[in-house]
Amino acid sequence: MERPTVLLLLLAFLTPGAAIRVPPAMKALSSLRWSNSFTSRGTVAKKYSIHYIQQKVNHFGFDADKTFKQRYLIADEHWKKNGGSILFYTGNEGDITWFCNNTGFMWDVAAQLKAMLVFAEHRYYGESLPFGNKSFTDSRHLDFLTSEQALADFAVLIKHLKKTIPGAKNQPVIAIGGSYGGMLAAWFRMKYPHIVVGALAASAPIWHFGNLVPCGVFMEIVTKDFKRSGPNCSETIRSSWDAINRFARTGAGLRWLSENLDLCTALTNTQDVQHLKAWISETWINLAMVDYPYESDFLQPLPAWPIKVVCQYLKNPSVSDAQLLQNIFQALNVYYNYSGQASCLNISETTTSSLGTQGWSYQACTEMVMPFCTNGIDDMFEPHSWNLREFSEDCFKQWGVRPRPAWIITMYGGKNISSHTNIIFSNGELDPWSGGGVTKDITDTLVAITIPEGAHHLDLRARNAFDPTTVLLARSLEVRHMKQWIRDFYANQRKKH
Amino acid sequence: MERPTVLLLLLAFLTPGAAIRVPPAMKALSSLRWSNSFTSRGTVAKKYSIHYIQQKVNHFGFDADKTFKQRYLIADEHWKKNGGSILFYTGNEGDITWFCNNTGFMWDVAAQLKAMLVFAEHRYYGESLPFGNKSFTDSRHLDFLTSEQALADFAVLIKHLKKTIPGAKNQPVIAIGGSYGGMLAAWFRMKYPHIVVGALAASAPIWHFGNLVPCGVFMEIVTKDFKRSGPNCSETIRSSWDAINRFARTGAGLRWLSENLDLCTALTNTQDVQHLKAWISETWINLAMVDYPYESDFLQPLPAWPIKVVCQYLKNPSVSDAQLLQNIFQALNVYYNYSGQASCLNISETTTSSLGTQGWSYQACTEMVMPFCTNGIDDMFEPHSWNLREFSEDCFKQWGVRPRPAWIITMYGGKNISSHTNIIFSNGELDPWSGGGVTKDITDTLVAITIPEGAHHLDLRARNAFDPTTVLLARSLEVRHMKQWIRDFYANQRKKH
Repeated sequence: MERPTVLLLLLAFLTPGAAIRVPPAMKALSSLRWSNSFTSRGTVAKKYSIHYIQQKVNHFGFDADKTFKQRYLIADEHWKKNGGSILFYTGNEGDITWFCNNTGFMWDVAAQLKAMLVFAEHRYYGESLPFGNKSFTDSRHLDFLTSEQALADFAVLIKHLKKTIPGAKNQPVIAIGGSYGGMLAAWFRMKYPHIVVGALAASAPIWHFGNLVPCGVFMEIVTKDFKRSGPNCSETIRSSWDAINRFARTGAGLRWLSENLDLCTALTNTQDVQHLKAWISETWINLAMVDYPYESDFLQPLPAWPIKVVCQYLKNPSVSDAQLLQNIFQALNVYYNYSGQASCLNISETTTSSLGTQGWSYQACTEMVMPFCTNGIDDMFEPHSWNLREFSEDCFKQWGVRPRPAWIITMYGGKNISSHTNIIFSNGELDPWSGGGVTKDITDTLVAITIPEGAHHLDLRARNAFDPTTVLLARSLEVRHMKQWIRDFYANQRKKH
Repeated sequence: MERPTVLLLLLAFLTPGAAIRVPPAMKALSSLRWSNSFTSRGTVAKKYSIHYIQQKVNHFGFDADKTFKQRYLIADEHWKKNGGSILFYTGNEGDITWFCNNTGFMWDVAAQLKAMLVFAEHRYYGESLPFGNKSFTDSRHLDFLTSEQALADFAVLIKHLKKTIPGAKNQPVIAIGGSYGGMLAAWFRMKYPHIVVGALAASAPIWHFGNLVPCGVFMEIVTKDFKRSGPNCSETIRSSWDAINRFARTGAGLRWLSENLDLCTALTNTQDVQHLKAWISETWINLAMVDYPYESDFLQPLPAWPIKVVCQYLKNPSVSDAQLLQNIFQALNVYYNYSGQASCLNISETTTSSLGTQGWSYQACTEMVMPFCTNGIDDMFEPHSWNLREFSEDCFKQWGVRPRPAWIITMYGGKNISSHTNIIFSNGELDPWSGGGVTKDITDTLVAITIPEGAHHLDLRARNAFDPTTVLLARSLEVRHMKQWIRDFYANQRKKH
């Protein structure tokens, strides 16, 4: 469950012909212990209470009147009933306690906004399973896993909180989320402006659908990150694919690769090699997402500016294939073995079916259809085109459903969103997801904040001594907007009375 | 199918213990020939083409990927590809051809707005049946009859039109609807502002939910209409209930009632008497809705200002019971026998199960839960309180579903809608539905237009020589707003290029 938002989004592109298989890399990610990330840095351990609310399994139909328990967390240490506010985390595809512990920004601003913090778990993730352990058995049980149902859960939950927590009723609520959660925050404000006064949508690629942005933009940004982090770095990676392909032609070559890359399980056929390349590609992608300016363990324990560290091993694309791939191995080890604990690199094992993984795979096969492509020229990857038909076939095989790629744009407006108000779209320029994000102001109240030195929603992380000035500025702008929304809310309330 | 929006909304209140039964009056209404209404007044016969679009049965789930044919009508005689617009009727609970023929306003303004007219049929009504003749067999087949699904149909349809009709792509679309269709028009703009630039919501009781307005407001307005239309008129009606009750105590009394009211089927028991009173109440309600200033046949063929005509028979509440009820009979005949063709009045027969009737009964039992009540003091009816529990039981017996009375407010915002823009709420002050409508401006762009001499969406009807000045003024204001939205749309488009 403890995995980044974004990995599965890429599968369709990275493992052609097995578009929605869970890649081996997932396994490694899911075994991390995230809860240490904050306490180990000496910040105050997070104190929250755990709650449950009965939600309708289907908000949009009345036949099956079943309910399920949605989990949510509350932290009200700094909350003031008088003039306070409610910051509402729109949970995305994972265990909510992990998001709670990894969204330090909310904890950092709670006091100045006199805010109650609420973290709401997304249905079908963590403990919030509509049909318990049967939730993923078939498409019938998965039929209620959509963004619309999730937003309805949030709306019902907030109305419940306002009704049941004394003092909460007449307070402004602000939606906050990152990545898919950032999309949910923005969409929540768009669809339920009567429930939240504004939204902070961090690293939310709301335009990574249909042909709103070129399908290659994501991998181009990944490539740029490597290009800027060391001489010849992206070129070396670009050269590596052919080197692997040349080795893969013979049994001896496969053995050499397996040994020299220290793989836990030896490669035996072409498909294994495809998986190896997909797994390596994902490593570069993940590094681009978590290229933070300080030691961190968001996806893996990593040094500060990890791509720079990686690129120290990738300075020369013109060496022999063997040398090149040994360098690649060194680079991979920065990501997979920074702690020095790994005895081998595991790519062949299929991942345990964690709920989060399954859930997102289904969502990517239905509503969240994000096209990705590469051409090997503007990016450092092997060329792959986006093939919706193939993707649809794979989805049907895996889940018995077919994607509806146009639906999200019909539902949430695509680029035509200027009539909405009070949404901050923040993006780090290092983050490959910024390519599908809103990076220019749309109106005075639909604003874009870009963070040149920022990777994936750096602004939502806890404050850190090594934070670059640009993220400090971004956070202070975000707080300024939120304070304005809160002031406007109370001013309107006074006007009414 | 040819029946007004509103009748079934009242059943819960009017026939306690049989809340969702279809009242006998439906039968009479459904046999009218509406298509004559326009041609008989000498206006040009409506020319439109009939089309169908394949819609997903479930926009909010991916398990059953079934589709159905939604019907829509297009009239493009006055449409201009250059600088034109699209007026989109958000069809409500009935056959769309009837709404098309009864919304003369759209036809009257088409030329000056260079507008294409589109009339979209609401799913589960008319020919747009998701499961054909099985659509109403059980709650499983009815599971996709919700306002959310209907709005999604509209959104998908408009995107389809823009894609397939040359010249439509870059044109502004305005949603127009009356009654439930008015609610849909307003909600459509709220939820899909990227698809429609504004909405004209005529006689839309979007606040007739929960406790947003007092449950008695509807019947108080009905009463006022009778009070103002003749001396002692409402008092006479108020007295009639006890007169009926006194007759109903004996077999002889029941016989007398059956004969003197000219009922097609004799009353035999207490339940029949309840139905009689419910049927009479509905007659007064219907008269309040269609109290138009000219001869019309919206619900029945009627004289101009029909309540005034009715009240000529209801001037004295203090006569004998027999005299009083004979006067009531005369009054009822204005409504049921203006044409002089009826040989008896039919209240005991259950109505043919027209689709429209079934559909709205289901909707009233799920999302569209509108509380009604009377106290016999502020209104001219027998006292009935609003009993949600009883209503819920009746719904469960009838449809196997239970109402969720809070949901519509959670979904569409209740009174907290000020962040939306470009919606006109028009209401006639004679219309009982105005009690649940928006009758004061909320912001500069969420405006209320009231028509003192107007009954139920008089403004949407075709222009007429006897139109009072206030409805002419209302229509010209409506057109002015729509022109502004169209201008804004084109100005924004120019700015982009």
